[in-house]
Amino acid sequence: MGVFVASTRPKVVVTRNLGPETMPLLLERDDVEVVVWPEDTYCDRKWLLENVRGATGLLVMLSDRVDAELLEAAGPSLKVLSTMSVGYEHVPLPELAKRNIRLGYTPDVLTDAVADIAIMLALMASRNAEEVTAVVRNGEWPKRPWSPFMFCGPQLSASTVHPQRTAGFIGFGRIAQATLKRLVPFGLTTCLYAGNPATPADPAADAAHARAFGLPRVARVGLAELAAESDVVFVLAPGGPATRHVVDAAFLRRMKSTAVLVNAARGTLVDTDALVRALRERWIWGAGLDVLEGEPVIHADHPLVKEPRCTLLPHIGSASIETRQGMAKMAAENLLGGVLGHAMPAEFTGTK
Amino acid sequence: MGVFVASTRPKVVVTRNLGPETMPLLLERDDVEVVVWPEDTYCDRKWLLENVRGATGLLVMLSDRVDAELLEAAGPSLKVLSTMSVGYEHVPLPELAKRNIRLGYTPDVLTDAVADIAIMLALMASRNAEEVTAVVRNGEWPKRPWSPFMFCGPQLSASTVHPQRTAGFIGFGRIAQATLKRLVPFGLTTCLYAGNPATPADPAADAAHARAFGLPRVARVGLAELAAESDVVFVLAPGGPATRHVVDAAFLRRMKSTAVLVNAARGTLVDTDALVRALRERWIWGAGLDVLEGEPVIHADHPLVKEPRCTLLPHIGSASIETRQGMAKMAAENLLGGVLGHAMPAEFTGTK
Repeated sequence: MGVFVASTRPKVVVTRNLGPETMPLLLERDDVEVVVWPEDTYCDRKWLLENVRGATGLLVMLSDRVDAELLEAAGPSLKVLSTMSVGYEHVPLPELAKRNIRLGYTPDVLTDAVADIAIMLALMASRNAEEVTAVVRNGEWPKRPWSPFMFCGPQLSASTVHPQRTAGFIGFGRIAQATLKRLVPFGLTTCLYAGNPATPADPAADAAHARAFGLPRVARVGLAELAAESDVVFVLAPGGPATRHVVDAAFLRRMKSTAVLVNAARGTLVDTDALVRALRERWIWGAGLDVLEGEPVIHADHPLVKEPRCTLLPHIGSASIETRQGMAKMAAENLLGGVLGHAMPAEFTGTK
Repeated sequence: MGVFVASTRPKVVVTRNLGPETMPLLLERDDVEVVVWPEDTYCDRKWLLENVRGATGLLVMLSDRVDAELLEAAGPSLKVLSTMSVGYEHVPLPELAKRNIRLGYTPDVLTDAVADIAIMLALMASRNAEEVTAVVRNGEWPKRPWSPFMFCGPQLSASTVHPQRTAGFIGFGRIAQATLKRLVPFGLTTCLYAGNPATPADPAADAAHARAFGLPRVARVGLAELAAESDVVFVLAPGGPATRHVVDAAFLRRMKSTAVLVNAARGTLVDTDALVRALRERWIWGAGLDVLEGEPVIHADHPLVKEPRCTLLPHIGSASIETRQGMAKMAAENLLGGVLGHAMPAEFTGTK
């Protein structure tokens, strides 16, 4: 902490207060100089361009734009960029590679938080959560006399009526598999998934998955079969042009009228207009969305906001206290590791 | 179907149309005469008193009042009462016993539907579903700039921050155990439960449960310990005077400030006024309720309806299509079994 080390300490810039559990990891060190954006708002670009000058490390959020201008402002001292996110859409990978800047990110740590939300949305979409909570909220419960099938939706769990339950996954990475693991005790019998078209089908791997999850059947299939056979479809693939509108009108028309659609990945994977029609015309039972094209600029008159069979969350997949603390801690450790020349807990090596 | 059997066919009266999957089981038989309340509303009492005369079987809903007057109106021909419900609060057991009337009900069939709702409510209460869906519904999403801990709630799943997760069950019957089974892949480590005080503790049974569920620890404990140690408390015990307000102010004050309360049993088990204080003063994180004292007469100005950390459902625990079809079918089969002198799939024998 002594003044004598001040001039030799590497500077790190952090674009957001990371909370009382994480900030001491940075602020209580005497071998780095820490500069933190002081407001609880998006980091101001002008402030950042000024303060990043001469920094060795930079810790950013998904909401910060990282570009050549910012990297130039930092100058040749910059050795590491640490983002508190699993995504790196906001980071220009070639620019980092050109400057030999290491990149840290926060994969895996959010897997369970998102899988929890995927299960929650599947249940909410099936059991009409949006519709029935509105009945209570609007004081209509006393006016709705009981009847045998009032408020009923399809059951996620297996039943004597439907002993077979099939879940379909668009994308079959860590989050999808964590979601699948949670579905098994609901009596799931079949898991279908549509994988990356660039990788070949692997029946031996499917059989190994079936054994590992204790399921009668795990199989990679085409999108048409996945749509037609699934009781619940989970969209859990990366965003970007390759997956844009993978759930379109043709997909939705193939789905069962009692099936539900869950999107906890990126809004771009689902064609919003097609989903509005699918819900209004009852091609499918319901939808649960944590993400939506155009978010966060979603107004109260958005057709899906007004759709009673659609549950909409404001992108809270990873928004659990534990996960955000874990992400902040990993981002801080990535920053320190890169600045001090140590190992980084999660270094993105796709740039190399 | 011939006219010649008409006069000898036993009459059965059904107080509600049970839907197109179930009614043919009754209507297509030629060995019973079926009389069905024709409206999709509660069965009219006067109509029932008139039509039940001379009936051999009577199929009722939880919403129908069965009393001595109704049984007298039926007369000595009445051999079986079949209720499409797991509860029998609406049935006077001594009056049935006095007249040697068999009772059919629909246990077990709703276990999975209610367990699904218990899991949904635990997730919704933890992850602030009521609060965050309102943000989207009211068009406030565009006005809420991202910040690292915005919308965050405690994570149901285990995490690096909280590797231990404890669920507490008030009542440890079929529905509680079906709920527990679903929680295991969320990384649950400990199950605590408060059982019927009339039965002694059984550590060997607890150890067997732990093995069966693959959990490090299952233990019967007192309510104070259950309240203090649980990350989520599930109320899944029968109603009635013995369990009234088992969750009271003292219980709620002992709970962790990050814990959530789920009630999918009967409203009477939770002291509503105490829960309102617990949520307002943040003794606990949130609550998810499928049942509430005074339901269904719950108006929009009810303090829990207005509480942003409370998710309220209009008693939809068993309201899945599959389960209600299963209950209707079982009620019809109980009716036929009793009328024709066969076995009943689920006969309540507590009256004997």
